[in-house]
This record gives sequence, C-alpha cells and structure tokens, in this order.
Amino acid sequence: MKLIQFISALIIIAMPAYAQEAPQETAPALTEAQKRTVDQLIDKALEDDRAYDILESLTTEIGPRLGGSEAEARARNWGVAKLRRLGFKNVRIETFDLPAWSRISESAEIVSPFPQPLAITALGQSPSTPAGGVSAEVVRFQTLPELQAAPIEGFEDKIIFVDEPMARTQDGSGYGAGVQKRVLAAVEAEKRGAAAALIRSAGTDSHRMPHTGGMVRGGATLGPAPAAALSNPDADQLARAMERADGPVTVRLDIQTEWRESAQSGNVIGEIPGETDELIVIGGHLDSWDNGTGAIDDGAGVAITVAAAKLVDELRGKPRRTIRVIMWGAEEVGLWGARAYAEQHADELDKHIIASESDFGAGEVWRFDTGFGPSAEGKVKPMADALRRLAIAPGFPVARGGPDVTPLREAGVPVATLYQSGTDYFDLHHTPDDTLDKVDPEKLKQNVAAWAAFIYMASEMDGDFGRLPVKGE
Amino acid sequence: MKLIQFISALIIIAMPAYAQEAPQETAPALTEAQKRTVDQLIDKALEDDRAYDILESLTTEIGPRLGGSEAEARARNWGVAKLRRLGFKNVRIETFDLPAWSRISESAEIVSPFPQPLAITALGQSPSTPAGGVSAEVVRFQTLPELQAAPIEGFEDKIIFVDEPMARTQDGSGYGAGVQKRVLAAVEAEKRGAAAALIRSAGTDSHRMPHTGGMVRGGATLGPAPAAALSNPDADQLARAMERADGPVTVRLDIQTEWRESAQSGNVIGEIPGETDELIVIGGHLDSWDNGTGAIDDGAGVAITVAAAKLVDELRGKPRRTIRVIMWGAEEVGLWGARAYAEQHADELDKHIIASESDFGAGEVWRFDTGFGPSAEGKVKPMADALRRLAIAPGFPVARGGPDVTPLREAGVPVATLYQSGTDYFDLHHTPDDTLDKVDPEKLKQNVAAWAAFIYMASEMDGDFGRLPVKGE
Repeated sequence: MKLIQFISALIIIAMPAYAQEAPQETAPALTEAQKRTVDQLIDKALEDDRAYDILESLTTEIGPRLGGSEAEARARNWGVAKLRRLGFKNVRIETFDLPAWSRISESAEIVSPFPQPLAITALGQSPSTPAGGVSAEVVRFQTLPELQAAPIEGFEDKIIFVDEPMARTQDGSGYGAGVQKRVLAAVEAEKRGAAAALIRSAGTDSHRMPHTGGMVRGGATLGPAPAAALSNPDADQLARAMERADGPVTVRLDIQTEWRESAQSGNVIGEIPGETDELIVIGGHLDSWDNGTGAIDDGAGVAITVAAAKLVDELRGKPRRTIRVIMWGAEEVGLWGARAYAEQHADELDKHIIASESDFGAGEVWRFDTGFGPSAEGKVKPMADALRRLAIAPGFPVARGGPDVTPLREAGVPVATLYQSGTDYFDLHHTPDDTLDKVDPEKLKQNVAAWAAFIYMASEMDGDFGRLPVKGE
Repeated sequence: MKLIQFISALIIIAMPAYAQEAPQETAPALTEAQKRTVDQLIDKALEDDRAYDILESLTTEIGPRLGGSEAEARARNWGVAKLRRLGFKNVRIETFDLPAWSRISESAEIVSPFPQPLAITALGQSPSTPAGGVSAEVVRFQTLPELQAAPIEGFEDKIIFVDEPMARTQDGSGYGAGVQKRVLAAVEAEKRGAAAALIRSAGTDSHRMPHTGGMVRGGATLGPAPAAALSNPDADQLARAMERADGPVTVRLDIQTEWRESAQSGNVIGEIPGETDELIVIGGHLDSWDNGTGAIDDGAGVAITVAAAKLVDELRGKPRRTIRVIMWGAEEVGLWGARAYAEQHADELDKHIIASESDFGAGEVWRFDTGFGPSAEGKVKPMADALRRLAIAPGFPVARGGPDVTPLREAGVPVATLYQSGTDYFDLHHTPDDTLDKVDPEKLKQNVAAWAAFIYMASEMDGDFGRLPVKGE
C-alpha cells in the first residue's frame, strides 16, 4: 500500500483525457479591470529578481537539506526569517515526526575481470550492505519488467543490475518508468535472495553523476535489498564490461546508511491574508536530496511561489482570498509534510478552494493544466487566455497539482498545474549537479509571472473551483 | 627548473609567427600517385571503426591508469597484446622508474557559517593535510597574479582560494593560465605559511566535477602546501558564501595522498617497419588521471595513431620510412615517458625525422601546424593541400607537436601538430567525466584519416623535414 502510494505520488503522468469545449458563460469570469491587473502583475514579475535572490539565499546559506536532518531544520528557520522579512503574516512552522534515513558512505568497483571504480549513489531508504560491502557476480536485466518476469530461483547472492534507460521528454513522462525501476528493483532483488540491486540512474544526462531518489523502506521481515544507482556512463561501462568479459563480472558494493527512528521535520507556512478565509494553497518543498543544493528540486518552487505571492501582496488592497504559501517538509523522503498538513488541517479542508505546488524545476511554464470540479470548467478558458502572453498553452482538464497537494486533491480540493518544461530537468534531478548555476534567471521570472497571474485570478474570480471526487468514496 | 619545465611542457600556446610564402619548389613534393594514395587512405579511414574499438577496449578493460600504478602496468600489457594482434612489429615495453603519487581520500566542507559539503579533488602530487584535515578561514584571490602580488605576511594558517575562471577557446589557449594557477597556487600558499590552497578548477564546464591535474612536488624544505580544486559550481558557491557571510568563512579540507619512491612505468612501442631505418614517431599517452577512464585524455590519441599506422601498414608494400607508434607512459604526472625515451634513444635521435603526438582529445582536426626545419618549408603546402578535404586549414609554421615529443623537439627533431578542436575539451579534461560516451565516433574517424594521410606523406616524401635548433645550443 505504502509502495503504491509512494509511486503514485511521484509519477508525473499526462492524463489521457482531452479538453472539452467549455460550457457557455453568461458573465465574464474576469472583469476588464482584473485583466489589466493580471497584465500589470506579469509586467512587474518579468522585472522582479526577488525569486532568484530567495533561491540564491536558500541554496547558498543552507545548501543540501535532507528531510528530517539538522540541515532541514536550519532551512525551516531560514524560511521563517525570509517570510517574516517579506511581510508575510501568520508565519509559523508546523512540525511533524518521521523516521529519518541518511547516507554514511558509498562506493563500488568492478573487482574482476576489469578492476576499476564505479560512480554510484545509494538510493534513499536503502539499507546498508554488510560492513565492508558485498562482492558478487552481476546479472544484468535490460528492463524492470524483464526482471519481474524472471524466475525467483537462481539469483541468490548475486547483484542484480537493471539497465533500463530513461527517455528525455518535455513533459517528464519518461520518469514514470524510471521511478518504478528505482523503487521496485530492490524489492525484486530481495525476493530472489540477491545481495543487492544496481540500477541505471533514472536520469537523462551523460555525466558521472548518479541520481539518487526514494525507493521503499523495508519492513522487519522482507527487505528491500541494498540498492544503488550507477551514473549513465557507469551503467554503459558495466554493460560493456559484461559484453567484453569471457566469464562473470564481479562487483563490490559498499553502502552504509542509517535510520533515526524519530526525527523532526515541518512545514513552514506564511500567508497573505485575504478578505475571506477561503484559502489558495501554493508552495514548493523545502527539503532536498543530500547530494546537490536543491536549486531546481525544489528551491525554485519555493522561490517562485513566495515571490509570486509577494507581488500579489503588493497590489492595492487585500486579495479576496487568503494566499497560503507552504514550504513543504520532507517531500523527497515520502511526502511526510503533505500528509501531516492534510491531517493537521483536516477540519478546514473545505476552505481550501484550490491548491498547487511548483515542483518540476526552473524551466519555463509552457502549459496550464487544470483539475477543477465540473461546475468550474468555465474558468479554465479565461485563466488560460490571461497566461497566453507568457507563451503558456492551454493544457489538459486533468491535473495532479504537484506531489505535496496529493492528499488535498484526494480529499476533493481542486488543483492546477503550471507545467514547466522538463526537457533538461532529469539531467540534474537528484544529482550533485542540482545547483544554482543551472537556473536561468529569465525563466524563473516567467514562472513568477505565471504564478502571480494564476493566484491573483484564483483569488479574485467569482465562485469557486468546484470540488473533485474524494478518493475512495 | 623542474617547475618551469613542467609548465612549458603542458601549456598549449599559439605561437605568434605567421606562415611565410613557401620557396618555389622545382619538383612536386607529392607525386600524382602519392596523392591518389592519400585520398584512398582518407576514404578507407572514414569507413574504419578500429580506432573506436581500440578506445572502447582500453577504457573498458583497463579504465583509469595513473602513471606508475598497477593499472598502468595492466594497460601496458593491454597495449602489447593489441599491437601484436594488429600485426605491429618489434612490439615491446621500455620501462623506466619514477616516484609515484596516489590519492587515498579527499573531502571538504564549509564548516561555518553555512555548513555544507564541497566537491573537491586533490591536485596531482599534492601532499596530505594533517590527518583529519585542516579547518581554517578562507581568503579569496580573484586571480593568481593577485595572489602573487599579495604580501607574504598575514596569511599564516589560512586557506588560500584562487578563484580565477578559465576561458573557453577552440585552440585551448585558456589552459595556459589555468595550468599556472594549478601549479603555482600551492607554492604561493606555502610561501605565506598558509594551511592549504584551493583553486577553481582549470576547466570550462558547470558540473560538480572538479578537475585534477599536476602541480609540483615539494622538496624536503619547501612545500607546496596541500592543494585541491573545487568544481566550478563549488567555487561559485564558496565565493557566494563569502559574499553573504557577515564574518569569516571557515572550510575544512582533508586530503590524504601517498608517494611510493620507486615505482615502474614504461613506454609501449610497436612499429610498421619501413624500407629505411628513418623513423616517424607518433602516438598518444597511455596513462590517464585516476578519476576518469582516460577516453579523451588520452585513449583517443592512442587509438587514433594506432589505427592510422595500421591503415598505412595495409597499403601494398612497405612504407619508405619506419613508423614507430609509442604509447607513452606517465605523461600526466610529469612527462616521465617522454624523458625516458629521449634518454634511452639518445644515440638514434638523428634517425627521427619527424615526431608528433595526438593529445588534445577526440574533437575534429581543424588545423595543421608544422615545426619543420627551414630546408623543408616547401613540404608544408602540399601536405596541407592534401588535408584540406578533411576541413583542415593550413596553420602556423611553428608547432609543439604534443607534450611527449617535447624532448625530441628540443633535441632538434621536426614536429607537426594535427590540431584538434578544443572547444569542449576542458569540460571533461582531468575529470571523472572523461569517459567513452563523450567521444564522437565520426570525429574519431576524421582524426584517423588526417593521421593516416600525414604519416603516409611523411614517410614517402623525398627529403627530410630539416632539423630544429637544439635547445640550449
């Protein structure tokens, strides 16, 4: 169950339904004055470099901030100080507990017949190998389905290598299979009594930067096996070594990790109070993997949404609805912040009229997807029209809204996705290369403009965004 | 002296002299039949994938092969087997001894005020820090000259950070200043009693791949200080941290390295015997830095020159002159193979009529530079004309010929440089990313074609290439 939840939360999918013609509106969903304000917000945003400054501050002054770590706690204090300095109201940390995983050391090498080091990284939540590592013959599978279809017997004490490559696409749709491989390879390995699992990184680059990312935590009885990702060039190398070797290829893998059963994380929250207590929830996640500095994943999302909310705050008068910005905690390690928030705010979920997270890097927004209730379909077109000058196309009438709003969406809260270009995202995602220099300041401004326009419209439009079906009902 | 020699050997410079009009020739330097053979060689080379196969074999089956290491010894055995299988004659290893440096471990982090790890690599020949590392305040210099001009006093026990960036150029001319920074920062640090030196990598990429490379070995009395390179993004990060910090920035640097006073290396030599004992010496260096697999530096040079010589071997009849292919040993760690060869072959240097090394990656050859004696100037134009169909431009009448032919050139042996495009070379050079996937097989073939044409012409043309002035005479 947890596994499925985890996968479904992380997989970014393009839903198969296409936009229907919107029903006729009797009154315009945006007034002319509101349209002018949207344009002014966009103009201001395209000149405003506060998002980049926020991102530079977070990635430089905090750097990596793994969910549940001391660094993530420093990031929360940073977030509180930043929001207060910008004039957000009701700034607070809402804490929650979680078991916290961390990496101690990791190394791998081909032992024979072609001895040489391999660049690997342990997958998040991987258990340790025995001290000193395991040395074993490697068995290669071209894909995860090939491994899943393999017999249970015959792989005892082997190292299972899943060599499946990931497709580069603008919408990130290659990541679905990548996550499945990352999450399930170790489970399949454990089922077969293998010593460990190695996967080709779920990433699209050709640098020796293995991509980490969550797998699944083992229970007391069944694994998963220890698991690590090879960089793409190292996966190439291992596959070539197996082709060129006359006999078995032996690899030594040494991963040392640890769990603290009770650690703390938290969501950092700040608000632009509106005339009503209806809530627009936006944000990005504050935690990052431990190897980069979390610039594109997801410092950018934090910076974009904070800067966008601030621009709306600087308009004359209060927004109609309250804009709540959340810097979500412990996303990467299992959506802990998202689930804690939904629990902690269960009694006010009906006030959440729309929610969205920016968590797909710092590429330009190119598509506007919506997950509104049927009664609000007429709002899609005027919103999409207002975003068109930013080269944002109308998108699907089905959206996920971002990983951290999953529990809200499943509770019926409408969502939207300002879909960013992900063509290069998986070159950097979950690697040491997720650093500030990879962010284009102009694209960041385009994001801020799109978000400012979106939250302003969401705040001011008459009527709500309907409700989505509640999951399981 | 050693320092200067080391720098001069590594710096690639574009000499300031321009081509003079060649004196009138009375007879053509290439016959029509020879021109046809050149064209046939080029045609064959552009269809021949043996260079890529050799490169794949070396980088996969051996991988990294630091000068003086056990891996380099395996590479020599690989080289002997490869040359024999290809039918080269007089295949042998000519060994020599050297003191061998190696890396044990390396790490760095900002300790305060913004604790986080930094991606660094120890520079080759760096001494160790004290066990457990040194923690010290960082002092930043924008350039090496700025450090050189700084007072001797006032930097005791500090970490000196030289943040000079490197320019990207097609001819690699940005590397000169890069090498000076890499070699001299630690010397300047030691003079000032600093705890260590950190440099911005001598590299042009924006990945978290620090670039290693040789510095200078300390004597018994004066350092250098321990020294490491930060990746470009980490140098950015450290500079930003210093800007954003209210007080000093403290870094901990821990480099553990070791020296074996007597280790073995060797040059691997094979020949295509000619009708005469006049020698054309070509090759690439077999050793590589320990972090990548030495694909562009310099497996490519080995593969290109072996494949080119083999194509000439496959012509009907013997070449007029003997083609000697050398896989040079221990280049990166101080041109040990080059110096050993010049000493071991001192009594036959007059038979060396021309020498050249391929050691600038796997980019396409775009320029043909020559360092011929004055009597042979007339040969430049016909050779350049024959290379034109490969989009190779006539170049400078001054060439260095490659690092490992430096001692030959200084002893009077003429040289030529088939100058490769280096625009991207310093993205990968001396990093873990120097791997096979970075090599374009089509560009490799263009190199083989250029080299096959060059050595064929050098072998068959009437008359020699003159002599260069002997250094120091």
